[in-house]
Parts: sequence; structure tokens; C-alpha cells
Amino acid sequence: MASVEKALEIIRRGADEILLESELIKKLQAGKRLKIKAGFDPTAPDLHLGHTVLINKLKQFQDLGHEVIFLIGDFTGMIGDPTGKSATRPPLTEEQVKANAITYQQQVFKILDPQKTTVRFNSEWMSKMSAADMVRLAGQYTVARMLERDDFNKRFKGEQSIAIHEFLYPLVQGYDSVALEADVELGGTDQKFNLLMGRTLQKAYGQESQVILTMPILEGLDGVQKMSKSLGNYIGVNDAPGLMYTKLLSMPDSLIWRYFELLSFRPMDEVDGYRSEVASGRNPQEIKELLAREIIARFHGEEHAQNAHKSSGNQVKLGEIPENVELVTVDMGGQAELPIAAVLRLAGLVANSSAARDVLGRGAVFVDGVVVDASFMMASGDSKVVQAGKKKIARLVLN
Amino acid sequence: MASVEKALEIIRRGADEILLESELIKKLQAGKRLKIKAGFDPTAPDLHLGHTVLINKLKQFQDLGHEVIFLIGDFTGMIGDPTGKSATRPPLTEEQVKANAITYQQQVFKILDPQKTTVRFNSEWMSKMSAADMVRLAGQYTVARMLERDDFNKRFKGEQSIAIHEFLYPLVQGYDSVALEADVELGGTDQKFNLLMGRTLQKAYGQESQVILTMPILEGLDGVQKMSKSLGNYIGVNDAPGLMYTKLLSMPDSLIWRYFELLSFRPMDEVDGYRSEVASGRNPQEIKELLAREIIARFHGEEHAQNAHKSSGNQVKLGEIPENVELVTVDMGGQAELPIAAVLRLAGLVANSSAARDVLGRGAVFVDGVVVDASFMMASGDSKVVQAGKKKIARLVLN
Repeated sequence: MASVEKALEIIRRGADEILLESELIKKLQAGKRLKIKAGFDPTAPDLHLGHTVLINKLKQFQDLGHEVIFLIGDFTGMIGDPTGKSATRPPLTEEQVKANAITYQQQVFKILDPQKTTVRFNSEWMSKMSAADMVRLAGQYTVARMLERDDFNKRFKGEQSIAIHEFLYPLVQGYDSVALEADVELGGTDQKFNLLMGRTLQKAYGQESQVILTMPILEGLDGVQKMSKSLGNYIGVNDAPGLMYTKLLSMPDSLIWRYFELLSFRPMDEVDGYRSEVASGRNPQEIKELLAREIIARFHGEEHAQNAHKSSGNQVKLGEIPENVELVTVDMGGQAELPIAAVLRLAGLVANSSAARDVLGRGAVFVDGVVVDASFMMASGDSKVVQAGKKKIARLVLN
Repeated sequence: MASVEKALEIIRRGADEILLESELIKKLQAGKRLKIKAGFDPTAPDLHLGHTVLINKLKQFQDLGHEVIFLIGDFTGMIGDPTGKSATRPPLTEEQVKANAITYQQQVFKILDPQKTTVRFNSEWMSKMSAADMVRLAGQYTVARMLERDDFNKRFKGEQSIAIHEFLYPLVQGYDSVALEADVELGGTDQKFNLLMGRTLQKAYGQESQVILTMPILEGLDGVQKMSKSLGNYIGVNDAPGLMYTKLLSMPDSLIWRYFELLSFRPMDEVDGYRSEVASGRNPQEIKELLAREIIARFHGEEHAQNAHKSSGNQVKLGEIPENVELVTVDMGGQAELPIAAVLRLAGLVANSSAARDVLGRGAVFVDGVVVDASFMMASGDSKVVQAGKKKIARLVLN
């Protein structure tokens, strides 16, 4: 194991808060293998780099010799929405939970060492818990304190209804720390309330309270809003190498050091060296390329990392749309919306479906200068400049 | 079965609210045997006539041919106080619950017909309920609506803490109606919120909602405050015949018709007849005696009812203390407090313990003109006029 000082430096990197750091130091000094808990939703995961900020921190703990517990919160998922108000949250079956867990693992084990990761499901203990145990658990916390949680507080003040079972879920999450006897729990800054619940409940159940560590929410490629699929400013861990490359090289310079701190495993000394070099005139695109290669290697292997630049779109610089491109009218055959792949074929920008998939997979399709993936839809009435690969570009008018 | 009109008249007698009466009429018209639920605490019961108001209403339903379900809420009692704040509410064991249930039955079966009463315990279904079921149950109600309950509302506004499990107990009580498929639930007016919960939950679980019927809280012998042991204005169902007689004959005239409505099974026509007679000059004490005999017969049998007046204290009228009684100094032997029985012996007002028990059981012991029972304590420093039976009276000064 690394020295406590060295370990602390690694643990602190990029962290938002560590509560209490003095307790963490004590735990590290004791020299035992710590149980590092992080909880994940059981819904079908499709991770982007924003999610990996937390997983990277788990990896750092793992490399320091501690036990990482990847906890899947399937108990609540298998209940669904008992108010019956959300048709989009039907209960998950055990089979769905297992299938989702495998999808999760396929993604996170590109970062974590499967040999050193314990995957647990909270249904292991929650499905054995009786109603009486649940009442006892609920006795450990007050209504007023629960209403202090940001989202509950806003909804309560805004007279939006909160079903009582929603008060039980943070208690369940906190109880997971009791069941696991967690030493440290990691989560996003938005999870702080729930993480603190673990501390409270461990104390109530006679255990030493866990240390909590919050990681910041990663900004998306726009450098402003949080990375999210629905905002389109994300890099998926399953994105093709060429698409990853194109997206990462398109990030604003202001994001470079933030991304290095949270997404790279290069030592901070080295990162600080690059920062000095850029300050002294080095082209920041070279540094972005270093980061892109590290990340592509992580998810696709070294070979793809070396070749990704070849498959990125480079006829038109991002955001720069040439004037006087050819105008092509596309007949959508009565459809209100079509996926980009279909539009590319109808416009003759690709020869067939397979070529469409290929060019999309390489991250070489741009709409009005912005790279898009296969999930992008175009609508009847659109008039946009669409580029597919290095040579094909046209303004498409959809009818 | 009685006609619906006749049944309604009996059911309405003394009731505070029936919600919805139209639903009750429909249920009565359907002609089936209705399930009438009433829930009781599992703590050791020591019933007074205030408690019997509800039990009398159950008896009326029973006499109308319906099934009375005497539900003991042992599930919550066996959990105790999970906040650990109340040392006086340790969890009850199964044995204690059973023992308390027997004590209950000994008292209520003086009113209800044991053959026609179903005794149930909510642990029957609640102990089989899983934590997941409890979460689903909690999903049926909102935090805001729960905070509308009077006591929660006051505590929340007064910033007194409410533990989250307290929100689960009304849900459990409501769920009992689901488990029992209750048609009607009875409770005191202070139980209205919990009774309505049964309606809500039955609907959520796909059942027809129960009708709720609330009974008023009975005033004690002072005619003002609710009957309660701690206020000393009560008549216990286990009070000796003489004590019952003395207490009932001491009630203010203003209480007579209220007590007849809620405590007597005489038809209201007959009661109205007495009322006219008293209005025309009949001595109200004769009417009180009628009521006293009915109640004593209920709890002690007809013979005691005929003889109770003989054992009531009658040397000094209640509240009238003679002047110039003998002064007796009692040496308490260093005790700060002593039960009245011990004081009677030390003062020589009775010959021995057995005589003390006897005179107390007859309701013939008065302290400063007020009848007391064996639980009455006297303290060092007291100076009070104490009467034991018809002849013994003295001012006792306790040292």
C-alpha cells in the first residue's frame, strides 16, 4: 500500500468533498483494506464519460489496494412506482436486473479490475427484510430532516406531492452501508444527502460511520451544462473510436484541464507540465489528442487509439459550414421524422445502410457543423447542411 | 335482521359521524352480514365506561346480526419505539400481547357476545409482510396529506420531531381494513383520520371502501373533561359494585341523558319518557339509579345491581365535609407516600388489610369528600378528612 500521504493525494484529486477527512486519515493509517461502496441504479445503463468520473475514483481506490463494492440498487427497481403514476417506471423483473447488471459490468470493467471488484445487489438483504424491520429503520430518521433534502424541500414548498415511500428509499440506500459495513461511500455531489444517511444509520446500528466522498458532475462538450445524453453534449463509453476522437478534439480549450483531472489517470505532475507548455505556446489540440488517445485506449484498446484520428471527419472544420453547397431535396415518404442513417441514404450521401452505419460509427457525420450519432433524427421541414465523411456534403431540404 | 330503517336508527344513536351514510344504507340494503371492525391497542387494558361507548356500538351491530371484529393492533406494539427515545414503550413480547388480549376479553365480553365476536391480531398479516410490501403500502399516500393529521400538523408546525415510522402506523391501521375486508370501521372522533385511511387504502387495493363511524369521547363525572384515569373522573369496568353506584349517583344532572344515550341499551323512546318525567318534577336521582343498576348488572350481575346501594358510602354527602371531626396524626414511618389502604390501617379507620380492601371495593372511602379507590396515594404533609364506610371519619395529618 502507498503511504497515507500519497494515498490522500490520489483520493483528493478532483473530489468535491470528503467528510470527514480526519476519519479517512485514521482509516488509512489503520492500514486495513477498506470497503469502498458506490451505488448504481438498476435501470439499463448506457454510460458516458460523465458517469466514469466516479468509476475512475473507484479505480484509484482499487489501485491503492482497497476493496471496491459495486452495488446495484435493484431492490427499489423491482418495486417500481407504487403510486402507479409513472407508466415509464414499471417494476423490473429479476431477469431484467441481471441483464442490466451484465451490461453495466461490460462497461465498467473497462475501467475497474473485475478481479478486485465485488458486485453486490441490495436485494440480497432487502428482500429478507420484514415490514417490521422497515418500520424500525424508518424510526431512525425524522420527517423534518428528510424534508431538508433539496429535491424534497422544493417539491414540498411547491406543493408537488411526495409519496411516503420516497422517504423510505434514502433510508434503504443508507441501510445498504450498514449491511455492507462500508468504510467509504462515493457519489456525485447531488447524492450528498443520501451518503450522509449512511453515516447516520451506521451510527444508529452501532457501527463506525463511513467516510463520504463526493465527485463533481462533469460538464459536457459545450463546457457549460452537465454532460447528458438528452443535451447531446456527451461522449458515450460505447461511442466508436472515430466518434470519440472527433468529439474530444472538438472540446473548448477551457475544458482541457478539468477533463484531465477527472478523466485521465496521468499523474497530476505530468498534467501540470502540459499546462505550462500550453501556457508557453504549445498547440492545445496536441494535448487534447493525448487525452483522446488515453480514453480511446481505455474503451477500445491501444490499436484503435493510434488510428482513431484517421477515421475522424476533417473536410470541414467543426462549426464552419462552407457556402454554396449543393442543395438536395429529400422526399421523406410521408414520415414526420427519420433517423439520420435513412436521410443519408435518401439524399445519396451514402450508398447503403451499411455505409451509413460505418460513417456514423467513425464520427464522420456532421449536421450544421456538429457531429451526430445514429440516434440523431431529422424532421420534415428541416433545411440543414449535412456532411458524411470527407467528401460528401450537401444542404438537405426535407419534405 | 331488522329493517334497514330500524337498523339505521340504532346505528345512528350517539354517533358523531357516519361517512358515507348513503354507502351504509346500500350495504344494509344488500342484506349481507357486514364485517364491523374496531381496533384496540395491545397495551394492558384497564377499561372505564368511556371506552365502552365504542364497545356498546359494536354490541348494537352484533345484535343487528353483523360480524364484530375485535382487532388487536399488536404489530406496532411488538415493535415498540424504534427511536429509542421512550423508555416507557419497550417492545411487547408475544406472551404479553396474548396476556393483554385475555384481560381485554374478560372486560369486553361483559358487553359483547363472545360467540359472535371474532378476535383478530394484525400481526397475523403484518408479520408476513415484507419490506417491499411496506414500501408499496407507503406509496399509496403522500407526505403532505399525512401532515394534515391534527397531531402531526401541530408537531410539525411546532418543530417537534416526527419519526418517519410514525407515518407508517396509520398506513398499517388502514391496511388492516384491506386485510379484513371491513365493511364498517368504528373509532373515536380522534381516530377519524386513521379510519379514512382505511377507505383510501381499500380503494387503492381494489376493494369497496369501508363506511366509517365515529363515536364521541365521553365526559367524565365532572361533566366537563373527557373521562380518564389520570383525571380521576372515571368509572372503571372493574370498579366494585358499591363504588360504581356511588360514582354514578354523584354525576351532575346535566350528564344523565348523555350517559343514557351512550352507556345504556334502553331504547331511546324509554329514555325520552324518563326525560319528560324529570322535566315534570321526578327526582333525577331515581333515574341515575336506573342507569347505575343497568351498568352494575352488566359488569357484576343482577344480584349486585340490586344490592349496590346498600354498600355505598352515605354518612357524609359527597363534597360535604363535617366540621370538627377528630384529628388523628399518622406516623408514616419515614415513607414519603403510602397507598390509602395503608393509611386507613395506620389511622385505625379499618381493622386490617382485608377490611381496607373491602371498604375500598365498596366505594365507601372518601378523601376530602371525594370517593377514591385503592390506587389513591397519600403523601407526608397531607392534612385531609378521610372517611371509611358509614361511621369512621377523621382528619388525618400525615408525618
